[in-house]
Amino acid sequence: MNSFTREQCADFDRLDELAEYRQQFDLEEGLIYMNGNSLGVLPKAAKDRVQEVVHEEWGRGLIRSWNTADWINLPNRVGDKIAGLIGAGEGEVVVADSTSVNLFKLAAAAVRMRQGRSKILSEPGNFPTDLYILQGLEKFQQGQVRLNTVNRNDILDAIDEDTALVVLTHVHYKSGDMFDMAAITQRAHEKGALVLWDLSHSVGAVPVQLNEAGVDLAIGCGYKYLNGGPGAPGFLFVAKRHQEQLEQPLSGWFGHANSFAMRDDYEPAPGIKRTLCGTTPVIGASLLEVGVDIMLSASMSRIREKSLQMGDLFIKLVEQRLSGFGFEIASSKDASIRGSQVSLIHEQGFAIMQALIARNVIGDFRAPNILRFGFTPLYLRYVDLWDCVDALVEIMEQEEWNRPEFKKLTAVT
Amino acid sequence: MNSFTREQCADFDRLDELAEYRQQFDLEEGLIYMNGNSLGVLPKAAKDRVQEVVHEEWGRGLIRSWNTADWINLPNRVGDKIAGLIGAGEGEVVVADSTSVNLFKLAAAAVRMRQGRSKILSEPGNFPTDLYILQGLEKFQQGQVRLNTVNRNDILDAIDEDTALVVLTHVHYKSGDMFDMAAITQRAHEKGALVLWDLSHSVGAVPVQLNEAGVDLAIGCGYKYLNGGPGAPGFLFVAKRHQEQLEQPLSGWFGHANSFAMRDDYEPAPGIKRTLCGTTPVIGASLLEVGVDIMLSASMSRIREKSLQMGDLFIKLVEQRLSGFGFEIASSKDASIRGSQVSLIHEQGFAIMQALIARNVIGDFRAPNILRFGFTPLYLRYVDLWDCVDALVEIMEQEEWNRPEFKKLTAVT
Repeated sequence: MNSFTREQCADFDRLDELAEYRQQFDLEEGLIYMNGNSLGVLPKAAKDRVQEVVHEEWGRGLIRSWNTADWINLPNRVGDKIAGLIGAGEGEVVVADSTSVNLFKLAAAAVRMRQGRSKILSEPGNFPTDLYILQGLEKFQQGQVRLNTVNRNDILDAIDEDTALVVLTHVHYKSGDMFDMAAITQRAHEKGALVLWDLSHSVGAVPVQLNEAGVDLAIGCGYKYLNGGPGAPGFLFVAKRHQEQLEQPLSGWFGHANSFAMRDDYEPAPGIKRTLCGTTPVIGASLLEVGVDIMLSASMSRIREKSLQMGDLFIKLVEQRLSGFGFEIASSKDASIRGSQVSLIHEQGFAIMQALIARNVIGDFRAPNILRFGFTPLYLRYVDLWDCVDALVEIMEQEEWNRPEFKKLTAVT
Repeated sequence: MNSFTREQCADFDRLDELAEYRQQFDLEEGLIYMNGNSLGVLPKAAKDRVQEVVHEEWGRGLIRSWNTADWINLPNRVGDKIAGLIGAGEGEVVVADSTSVNLFKLAAAAVRMRQGRSKILSEPGNFPTDLYILQGLEKFQQGQVRLNTVNRNDILDAIDEDTALVVLTHVHYKSGDMFDMAAITQRAHEKGALVLWDLSHSVGAVPVQLNEAGVDLAIGCGYKYLNGGPGAPGFLFVAKRHQEQLEQPLSGWFGHANSFAMRDDYEPAPGIKRTLCGTTPVIGASLLEVGVDIMLSASMSRIREKSLQMGDLFIKLVEQRLSGFGFEIASSKDASIRGSQVSLIHEQGFAIMQALIARNVIGDFRAPNILRFGFTPLYLRYVDLWDCVDALVEIMEQEEWNRPEFKKLTAVT
């Protein structure tokens, strides 16, 4: 195997067609940020936009901005833009609430559409909030439906005639492994079940073709690869063919056929709007739009290509320079089933990540022993990968991770 | 009855102890804003704060800000501050989600705590999203519980041994009429029922003493009298005594006992934190804190006093100057049962409000015929009331409302 040098990595950057996107983001000099899969960075344009929304739309326009700044259509406008990133159509996506709340809405609606079937299928180790929300649904539907988790390799076989809904995260948050969306969706449909995909680690990171794969329902996160800001609203997708049958329990006024007629009886809006609940978080949704606009302006296939090159390079650098230090590569080496991250396993993972962060290289740690490195092709450089691994080498060689300050637990996200 | 003059109103302003608060808000010169009960105005301090949160906490701190900027405790920190405005204790209030979503969480939890009882009681004409959410719960719980609405004067008598939960809006959004919170709560408890108060038109507007009244549960809005910004997160209250029994269906990872341990099984956090669901909307919650801080720095009893004086003055001005133009006062003239607004009924209400807005006096219209004027003592002046009524006089005398441009319907909030 050839040994890579930093100079070679710099060459990759010089040839990179996406390199110019980096200047659209507000990145601190000297910081290497490999945590865009947890919280994406600040687009420079978001600084102007937040000022416009707060000073002008709120400050000057006040209540009139529901019309004059079109706040009323924000969920649909930004949703339609996200649709373009995930192979969905106009009127199939809205921005609203959190990813967790959106999952509850759609999972409850799906179970209702498949009444009589008793099983929701997922995998152990799925992103925890997804399992928690499904457990909440199970408890509150009192025995009508139960959550069944089976290992990811057994999912296809576990889908049966009693399955109401399959809920999976397309790209696994820890390992970065990716499911075959089309194959699982097809099997589910053969058995009469519905499928709901969590796209939190997919949208803006890997190509997704919801309609091509025949997907029924999906949810996703706004603050990771979409760079929507901390706690940005989530989004949800409902295929057109299901919309008129869809009844979701969080039937708030923004999902009403005529929100401002102030009638006593709920009547769901036609189409995707019925999935809305309360008042739109205007500032959060407006900033999310900035991140989505940047993502839409780039080529998703080029993003994917660079992401996979980065993953391959990172794995090679780890193998080349970190062998003998006890790291194990947790992600698939087969690029075709890998999302936009590579995870390493190390028994001192927590302390190593703390030491890395102290050196201004930010990845993240997931209990009990996973070091996670996300690749965000719009603002990450090949040399950043080299420098990250270089820092890891020094941390291991000098046993920097063994310092007491890196071993104390703090809240980590 | 004495006739008031504009000069007298200006005298009231000169004597007003709260007058200096107006300078803390970013109000456009010449604008009279009587819609703070729908969307509060921009605090000047929010401009600096949003820049700090976006540029520094997000842009520079990135993922580290969950610890370094204490994002992780935002829901509790701002919640504890709101507690101080509604007579609640530390650890009884959090900021999260929308008001509608919060209602769903607490109403579902309450029904579970009173399993076996089949009735949720509310009033027809309650704020629509409250009824819609309760209808969603009813449908979703399939016959276990049904929503029963009775007229507000019959509520006390309608609470019976089959009532699981009473859900009422403390100050009515249209009329501004206020329920006797303590009396209804007491009656509910005598019958073994729980009570949930919607404080959306109360918090920051009228004194509320949740614990003194023995209230079980409450929700409220962040973007009205609290001036938290468009679509600001809502808040919720659970009395300490209920917290350890409370199980709510939206059991997302932020309500978990150990959110970042990433375990597969949901375990509710101790205390109020179990009512959280998804990731905190950081920017929205941070701006809400600015509004809450201003409100906390003012005397609630002085706010109430000024609010009532404003209501009385407004009613007198309407009676004095608008008689013969077909207005009817929809709010109670008894100040003790009136919130911080006065509503007028007029068959041409929509067009009149449009004409008023065109004159830079902003109230709002609620179908079918209600003109609503909110009093926000921290930034509204007595002369504003005079000028508002003066504009109404001109609109009626000159039949300005009859112009075609004021008659076409647009989305109104």
